[in-house]
Amino acid sequence: MIVKALEIIKVEVVVRNIAAGSLAKRLGLAEGTVMAKTVLEYYYKDDALGDPLINASHIAALDLATPEQMEFIRTTALKVNDIMREYLAPVNIDLIDYKLEFGIHKGQVILGDEISPDTCRFWDKNTGEKLDKDRFRRDLGNVEGAYQEVLRRLTGE
Amino acid sequence: MIVKALEIIKVEVVVRNIAAGSLAKRLGLAEGTVMAKTVLEYYYKDDALGDPLINASHIAALDLATPEQMEFIRTTALKVNDIMREYLAPVNIDLIDYKLEFGIHKGQVILGDEISPDTCRFWDKNTGEKLDKDRFRRDLGNVEGAYQEVLRRLTGE
Repeated sequence: MIVKALEIIKVEVVVRNIAAGSLAKRLGLAEGTVMAKTVLEYYYKDDALGDPLINASHIAALDLATPEQMEFIRTTALKVNDIMREYLAPVNIDLIDYKLEFGIHKGQVILGDEISPDTCRFWDKNTGEKLDKDRFRRDLGNVEGAYQEVLRRLTGE
Repeated sequence: MIVKALEIIKVEVVVRNIAAGSLAKRLGLAEGTVMAKTVLEYYYKDDALGDPLINASHIAALDLATPEQMEFIRTTALKVNDIMREYLAPVNIDLIDYKLEFGIHKGQVILGDEISPDTCRFWDKNTGEKLDKDRFRRDLGNVEGAYQEVLRRLTGE
């Protein structure tokens, strides 16, 4: 593993294929509603403000990133969606949504942070069982077992 | 006055030049902070949900409007900003922000609703005095006097 020091961009990027969590609440949709089009959201990384939803014009006004950086972030976030769904489909995992963070390293925007059941929602395609951090957040139990199940399906371990 | 029946588009459009109200809260800015770039926001017209902030991808996923309609709405909303600021500058009124609604009439998107101190924030350029609905919302008194003052400056009446 290579760890690079990043200048963090204060924008969390969330990509959503199926309504869950705050999206279900915001739009008044039942959890599990398949979105007709992929939803891409930006949140302002600011703990004191509670990481509020923002849009591209807020990002420009606050100068959190340049329009060119945001275009790279947007296209990368959507590419990750294609790659992950293709990776997870054979092991019967639906990618509900996920969060990405980006940073700047030597002048280039690069994907930062981890991609894991801590930052994604994974549901079993057949049973709908949650295989992610919602087991912890919602006190569903067997958090470790669910994480191991994801690993087992992906690696056979 | 011509009144046309519109099929309402369930998106409120807010354009903001200076931070006030929910924008100041969302971004943690002092009211009166001049935005480095114009902010354009979309809200989902749904009373039960409290008219939440949404973005273009939510609008597409919910099919509230087509991308072409949204492009017309975006450019129109920003044109209105230029026109109103030019109109208000000579009478020493700062246009802080305003809300627009759009509808569809015979297949065409057109601007609906009113543009007034009920739907805009107007501040006196020199004193910062509020000349809009915030006098009512914030219980500042002299609501009618403020509205008449705006009318007087614009029409001499």
